[in-house]
Amino acid sequence: MTRILFRKAQLADVPAIITLLADDVLGRLREDPGPPIDRRYVDAFHAIDSDPNQLLAVAVCGSEVIGTLQLTFIQGLARKGAWRGQIEAVRIARSQRGTGFGKQMFAWAIEQCKERSCHLVQLTTDKTRTDAHRFYDQLGFEATHIGYKLTLK
Amino acid sequence: MTRILFRKAQLADVPAIITLLADDVLGRLREDPGPPIDRRYVDAFHAIDSDPNQLLAVAVCGSEVIGTLQLTFIQGLARKGAWRGQIEAVRIARSQRGTGFGKQMFAWAIEQCKERSCHLVQLTTDKTRTDAHRFYDQLGFEATHIGYKLTLK
Repeated sequence: MTRILFRKAQLADVPAIITLLADDVLGRLREDPGPPIDRRYVDAFHAIDSDPNQLLAVAVCGSEVIGTLQLTFIQGLARKGAWRGQIEAVRIARSQRGTGFGKQMFAWAIEQCKERSCHLVQLTTDKTRTDAHRFYDQLGFEATHIGYKLTLK
Repeated sequence: MTRILFRKAQLADVPAIITLLADDVLGRLREDPGPPIDRRYVDAFHAIDSDPNQLLAVAVCGSEVIGTLQLTFIQGLARKGAWRGQIEAVRIARSQRGTGFGKQMFAWAIEQCKERSCHLVQLTTDKTRTDAHRFYDQLGFEATHIGYKLTLK
């Protein structure tokens, strides 16, 4: 069995990440996996990569990117200056679904939040993603909030 | 009528912001408004203040801080490197509730997100804050997501 490695994404991972973002019932309408790779993805990668409060991560098995997520570490004044870890843009390769890999990826992500002394981890998920809801419930997340979005353009 | 000014928070605003954070059915259990002011609030203020992707804001009427919120600008790879504006830690002074001031503060916050070219504005609110839900619905926000939290400590 090939070992799964979790690490910060590198520029060379960007096409694979976009392919994962696009391979999704909601994402396929919004992404352009190329080739060629749209310059805006590369620019965004560099901005995210150089921000110490951002961690764009990949899970790699052999030479294949099998999962991705983005962590944002946000400090507030509330709770005496507490940090929270926020997880966005979670994608798992189709071949890995139902294998327990998602749980492994989240264990890694939560560990990153602990290392940054976050008092909580938060994420929102579309109300239509019922499989995801079961997954987060099982991980011990609590569905205490409503996630509101306002599209600007 | 004294004009309301919206601006980036300054160090001198921190005690007033903490008082607002603490004057809340959920927040009062979590904050220590002092005096003296807990050093951790000051340290957090400086970290937030120096991060170009954070905007801790206050609304001021005369010399009084009557509202606060924190904006975080988050870039992702998704949607060709789109930015989103996230609003956290919204508080409105009791004296200003029901006056239309909240709407004014949100119009200002949404404008900041537009200036940063965000494609959407997002926030989560506790399921128990039914007044807040009505408020966000009226502003045109859509309750499309579920907000999950995992407390680490």
